[in-house]
Amino acid sequence: MIGDGMGVTQISAGMYSSDKQLNLERFPVIGLHKSYSADNLITDSAAGATAFSAGVKTYNGAIGVDMDTMPVTTILEMAESAGMPTGLVATSSIVHATPASFYAHVKLRKEYEEIAADLMETDIDIFIGGGAKYFERREMDTRNLSDEMRSRGSEVASFVDTKLKDIKVKKAKRIAYYTADSEPLPYSQGRDYLVDATEIAMNFLDQRDSLDKGFFLMVEGSQIDWGGHSNNSDYIISEVLEFDRAIGAALNFAQQDGETLVIVTADHETGGYAINTGSVRGQIEGAFTSDYHTADLIPVFAYGPGAEQFSGIFENTAIFDKMKLLYGFARR
Amino acid sequence: MIGDGMGVTQISAGMYSSDKQLNLERFPVIGLHKSYSADNLITDSAAGATAFSAGVKTYNGAIGVDMDTMPVTTILEMAESAGMPTGLVATSSIVHATPASFYAHVKLRKEYEEIAADLMETDIDIFIGGGAKYFERREMDTRNLSDEMRSRGSEVASFVDTKLKDIKVKKAKRIAYYTADSEPLPYSQGRDYLVDATEIAMNFLDQRDSLDKGFFLMVEGSQIDWGGHSNNSDYIISEVLEFDRAIGAALNFAQQDGETLVIVTADHETGGYAINTGSVRGQIEGAFTSDYHTADLIPVFAYGPGAEQFSGIFENTAIFDKMKLLYGFARR
Repeated sequence: MIGDGMGVTQISAGMYSSDKQLNLERFPVIGLHKSYSADNLITDSAAGATAFSAGVKTYNGAIGVDMDTMPVTTILEMAESAGMPTGLVATSSIVHATPASFYAHVKLRKEYEEIAADLMETDIDIFIGGGAKYFERREMDTRNLSDEMRSRGSEVASFVDTKLKDIKVKKAKRIAYYTADSEPLPYSQGRDYLVDATEIAMNFLDQRDSLDKGFFLMVEGSQIDWGGHSNNSDYIISEVLEFDRAIGAALNFAQQDGETLVIVTADHETGGYAINTGSVRGQIEGAFTSDYHTADLIPVFAYGPGAEQFSGIFENTAIFDKMKLLYGFARR
Repeated sequence: MIGDGMGVTQISAGMYSSDKQLNLERFPVIGLHKSYSADNLITDSAAGATAFSAGVKTYNGAIGVDMDTMPVTTILEMAESAGMPTGLVATSSIVHATPASFYAHVKLRKEYEEIAADLMETDIDIFIGGGAKYFERREMDTRNLSDEMRSRGSEVASFVDTKLKDIKVKKAKRIAYYTADSEPLPYSQGRDYLVDATEIAMNFLDQRDSLDKGFFLMVEGSQIDWGGHSNNSDYIISEVLEFDRAIGAALNFAQQDGETLVIVTADHETGGYAINTGSVRGQIEGAFTSDYHTADLIPVFAYGPGAEQFSGIFENTAIFDKMKLLYGFARR
C-alpha cells in the first residue's frame, strides 16, 4: 500500500488530527527507505513506484523501464506468471504514475493512452481507479479498451451508472471499475471509495486464489501527494486518514487470514511539510518549504509473514527484492 | 543517545552528505515516538528529555519534575540506586535541558546553577560537557562545586589546562570534565570531542562496573538542534555526522561487549527542515518552515539485547518504560 507523498510529517499530522489511534500504529515492524531515483536525489512518483514494482533505480518520469528505457519485469507481472490473481486500487486514475508502474512500460509518465494500452497486455484480475477516458475515448487510436475487456469476459463498470458495491463480484471473471473519467475528486469533495475498494479487491482476489498460491494487490492513497503539491494541510490530513482506514481494512483481512503480508510505505515526501508552533490536536498549523517533493527517508510499515524483513534502513528498491524473496519468485 | 532536534530530515541530510554509510544504518530495529509534551503538541527539550528520563509527560521547560513540579525519579537515579555506574556526555553544557533532565529536578530549564547543585546530590561517575561557570563562579551562592567534587575524590579537569585524552581514567574514582566555560563551540568551529568522550565514558563505566551489573550512559549530540534553530543546514549536517560517529563508537562497544543495548533517538525535530529540489549528494538545499521545534514523529533506533522492544509507534515516555523493564528496575 502506497501513500503517495506520505512522509513522516504527513503521518504525524494525520495522527494528531484523529480521535482514535491510527491503523499505522498497529504495525509491529518499521523501516526507513531511501527514496532517491537514478538521476535525482529527489524522486518523482514514476521512478519511485518503479523502484518498488521492479527493483530498479531509474530516471524521474520512467514507468516500468530502466535507465535505458528498457522494460523491467514488475512484481505484479511475476505474480501473474506464477498464476496468482493480481489487482490495483488507486484514488488517482489507474494510469497515473504509481499504479501504472506496476503494469506499464513507457518512457514518460504522461503517456496515459499508451499506459492504458499496456494494461491490456496484462492479466490483472481487478482494478479500481479513475481514467475511463484513456480507455474509452482515445486520441491515439480508435480502440475502446473497455469493450475489449468486456469481450474477454471482464465485468466493466463505472461510477456513472454503477455503484462500486453493486458490482457482481461473485460471478465476475475479472473486474474493471472506473471511479472517474479522468482524476477522482479529493476526499473532502465527496470521493469516498478507498476502503470499500480495498475490501472488495482483497475479497475478490482471495476468492480467485482457488489454488491458494496467494495474490498481489497494490492500493494507493494517491492524493496525499496532491495535498502536498497544493500546500494544503487539510487536504493532506483528510487523504491520510482515508488511506489509514484502508490500511485498517487490509490489516483486518491479514489478521483473520494469517497468511497475508501488508506493507505500507510512500514513494517520497511532498511539500517539505511541517507541523509548526501553534498546532494543537485537531488543528494543525501546517507549513511548507516547497510545492514539490523532498528527499526525506520514508517510513515502511510491515505486518504479517515476513514482516521482520522490513526493519532497518534500506533502498526503496529493496522493497521489491524483499517481496520477491518472500513470494519465492525465481531470479530474473 | 539523543540527537537533540534530529528528525527524519536531519538524518536524511546527514546520510546524503556522507561518503560512507551512516552508523544509523547498522541498527536492526526502528521505532517512531510521539514527542508531544503534556501542555503542547510541540515539545521543548526539557519536557522531551524528562519523558525519556522519567517516563512522564510534563510541561515545556520542566526538568525532572511532573506537571505539579514534583520531582520524578529518573532512570539514571534508578541505575545509581541499583549500584550501577552512570555517566553523561553532551556537546552542550552539562546543565542544559537534555542532560539536566537525567539528574536534576527544577521548575524551569534556565535555572542552571540550581541544576548544577542538583548534580552534587547524585553519584554520577563521569560527566563530560560544558558549563564550568555554573559550578565554579556561581551567582546564587559561594560554593565551588568543582572543589566539592575534588574533596570527594573526583578527578575534575577542564579544557583550559587538560586534554580530554590526558585524564587519568585508570586511577579515577569519578571524573568531571568541562569542555567549555558555558556552551561548547559548534563542530564546524573546532569542537571535536563527542566520539572520544563517548569512548572514554563507556570504557570508564565498564571498568567501574566491577560487579557486572551494567551501566547507564546518556550521550547527547546537542547542537543538531541549534543548527535547526539557526536554520543552518550545514550546521545541522556537521553535527549529525559527528553524532553518528559517536553512535558508531557505541555500536562497536556494544558489538564487542554483547550485553549492551544502544538506543538512539531525538527529543523532537527542529526547524521544519526539508531537503528541497536542487539538492544533490554532498550539497543539500535545506529549507525551513520555522526557527523552533515541530511535532513530527521521531525515529528510534535500537541495537543489542532487548532492541526488539523498540519497534512500532509509541509514546516518548515508553522509552523510559522499556529501559526500566529491560534493566529490571522495580516499579515506582
